[in-house]
Amino acid sequence: MSLLVVGTVAFDAIETPFGKTDKIIGGAATYISLAASYFTSDINLVSVIGSDFPEESIDHLKSRGVNVDGLQIKEGEKSFFWSGKYHNDMNTRDTLATELNVLEHFDPVLPDSCKDADFVMLGNLTPAVQLRVIEQLTSTPKLIVLDTMNFWMDIAMDDLKNVIGKIDLLTINDEEARQLSGEYSLVKAARKIIEMGPKYLVIKKGEHGALLFHGERLFYCPAIPLEEVFDPTGAGDTFAGGFIGFLAASGDISFDNMKRAVIYGSAMASFCVGKFGTEALIGLNREDVNSRVKEFADLVHFTPVS
Amino acid sequence: MSLLVVGTVAFDAIETPFGKTDKIIGGAATYISLAASYFTSDINLVSVIGSDFPEESIDHLKSRGVNVDGLQIKEGEKSFFWSGKYHNDMNTRDTLATELNVLEHFDPVLPDSCKDADFVMLGNLTPAVQLRVIEQLTSTPKLIVLDTMNFWMDIAMDDLKNVIGKIDLLTINDEEARQLSGEYSLVKAARKIIEMGPKYLVIKKGEHGALLFHGERLFYCPAIPLEEVFDPTGAGDTFAGGFIGFLAASGDISFDNMKRAVIYGSAMASFCVGKFGTEALIGLNREDVNSRVKEFADLVHFTPVS
Repeated sequence: MSLLVVGTVAFDAIETPFGKTDKIIGGAATYISLAASYFTSDINLVSVIGSDFPEESIDHLKSRGVNVDGLQIKEGEKSFFWSGKYHNDMNTRDTLATELNVLEHFDPVLPDSCKDADFVMLGNLTPAVQLRVIEQLTSTPKLIVLDTMNFWMDIAMDDLKNVIGKIDLLTINDEEARQLSGEYSLVKAARKIIEMGPKYLVIKKGEHGALLFHGERLFYCPAIPLEEVFDPTGAGDTFAGGFIGFLAASGDISFDNMKRAVIYGSAMASFCVGKFGTEALIGLNREDVNSRVKEFADLVHFTPVS
Repeated sequence: MSLLVVGTVAFDAIETPFGKTDKIIGGAATYISLAASYFTSDINLVSVIGSDFPEESIDHLKSRGVNVDGLQIKEGEKSFFWSGKYHNDMNTRDTLATELNVLEHFDPVLPDSCKDADFVMLGNLTPAVQLRVIEQLTSTPKLIVLDTMNFWMDIAMDDLKNVIGKIDLLTINDEEARQLSGEYSLVKAARKIIEMGPKYLVIKKGEHGALLFHGERLFYCPAIPLEEVFDPTGAGDTFAGGFIGFLAASGDISFDNMKRAVIYGSAMASFCVGKFGTEALIGLNREDVNSRVKEFADLVHFTPVS
């Protein structure tokens, strides 16, 4: 089924304890589209870039089956740029630079062919911009997934709550779930967030895995303990891309299939953090992915006493 | 099979965001013995208390099948006392008071009947005292498990490494694994710690579950997301007690059975944190425990794509 992906396509410059990059390709929608492309080839990307963005990166997305009709290219302007430095624990980072550039006046325009998308993935963006995407839809998607971050809770909580009220599934991390709900217990936080509108909630806990909530139902996906995390940038977006790509490919949004999707998303994220930027998302194949999924299954497998 | 438990039997005074206790019964060996008693009744406790310790608490242990022949009672002396206050996140705490009392000169003496124990659980204690227990054993146990904490890494690292070299399984938390190994990655930390002697390692991650390492084999046990954690005191000891009690009851130390034991230990710990002190470990039954274990299985269950 068709998948619409809206989010940033951008440049990142990243420093971790393992090294440092120049400007490399990044942006939420880039990670989401690349991860989703391992599951489905009916992907429509809506975003904005400047004329500084390399054509071969666009061509790479196209070669992965991503339709870029909705990708605006602003002549003479510069693409969004973010630069950050991770601390030794890899869980915290300092932002060194944020240059909005083309993102400052981004008004997403959905091509007609995307307005009836079956699955919609709204990557992290200004909540008001995420809302404008939903307003352009001409039919109700099977699933709208929204990703956001604490930044918007700090400066645009009302807009965020408004758009959260119009989606089906929210993905945030544990600290953000606590901030959004005002509850420390994640069980209580999830209950409050689900009351805000979304029927489903995924709480991402990084190296500690992810939780999927739906009503009183709960699924826990572990994270594979990794030898080394080189670069956590894009891990959350890659998770979201694998998650919604897997769902869009099957068209099945039963809770059982969502559990699988959380595992597939986590598998994609576990590859992502092993190299800088999007590097690890290039050249994987489905066998690699399936074999990683089997590792997730083995990791938690035990047989209760008979 | 017979289980020897060595550790503190003590008083605690605990303050959490949910309330405050006067002096209540605590101590690593108390939690370990109570948790283990849900699985096996061949438990021998070696510890030391003062004459201030209430007889009904000893009687309660006896009623749970715990043999207290190795429990020294120092007339006219006071029992070990610890007091602490948990922060709002429940993951960090301040120690308000530590009165060693009888513990200061504790010299564990194993009754002859315990010297050939099949399973040995060394609760958190001075590493030199833990070593003196091992030295008194007259036959090689099937499994020696040792629990310790960062405090001993700070002040007695050589003694600790010495005793760690003589055991089969070490239980510590993630921060302690990092401190002991000097590695941030838990996979690398585990490899280094296993090189120090123990064939098995359990890394406890509190609300994020636990990892069991054995050579290159790895098992991940989640934690049940709880509505509320009232008091984390004794959770690690309760885990250890459930773990070794389950193993001692079956006598089976295959990796598959150890995985089950990690789940049973975690199930016991999930009860423990729901009430103050040892309160939740009184009046459970095996059906409660089995039903909680089923929750662990359900929590992570998914069916891969066929």
